[in-house]
Amino acid sequence: MSQQFDQVSVVKQANIYFDGKVTSRTVLFADGTRKTLGIMLPGEYEFGTGQAELMEILAGKLTVQLPGSEEWISISGTGEFTVPADSKFKLKIEQTTDYVCSYL
Amino acid sequence: MSQQFDQVSVVKQANIYFDGKVTSRTVLFADGTRKTLGIMLPGEYEFGTGQAELMEILAGKLTVQLPGSEEWISISGTGEFTVPADSKFKLKIEQTTDYVCSYL
Repeated sequence: MSQQFDQVSVVKQANIYFDGKVTSRTVLFADGTRKTLGIMLPGEYEFGTGQAELMEILAGKLTVQLPGSEEWISISGTGEFTVPADSKFKLKIEQTTDYVCSYL
Repeated sequence: MSQQFDQVSVVKQANIYFDGKVTSRTVLFADGTRKTLGIMLPGEYEFGTGQAELMEILAGKLTVQLPGSEEWISISGTGEFTVPADSKFKLKIEQTTDYVCSYL
């Protein structure tokens, strides 16, 4: 995985959720796709998807419960998971987590 | 001020300070300059500069004490201030603050 995204646009205004405990910046690619680069502080969150998402964890410690599952999957360091469109998933963030979200 | 930065590179890895209460992403411009897009959560912080900085507040509520000053300047909504190179300044963030920092 490269260390940076090149020849992109970045939206200045942050996306702010959960009183600032989850924030992200939107990156727009020349092919019309977009990703968000985000930070999640410790806490428990439920998110809803519109499009399907690929969540790549760059650093941090968390557990995730994917839609339709009773299981909690833990990630410490790096990892990734996908979430289907129009669904909900839960995250328990144990340590500040840095992520890239791609919309599929 | 335009709503986005175009034809830039964005470093994936976040800059994380104060246990995640202050985070930013680095944006690299074709002319070799860089800016950071950041979020500060409520709290009191002291920062040191290397290069001089222009801080543009996109949203939030804070007071700032610039180097050599006893005064606290308050910004609610948008605003900006500059900080000299190799100096320290203090911020009291009252509401989650979204900013752009340019290195001068």
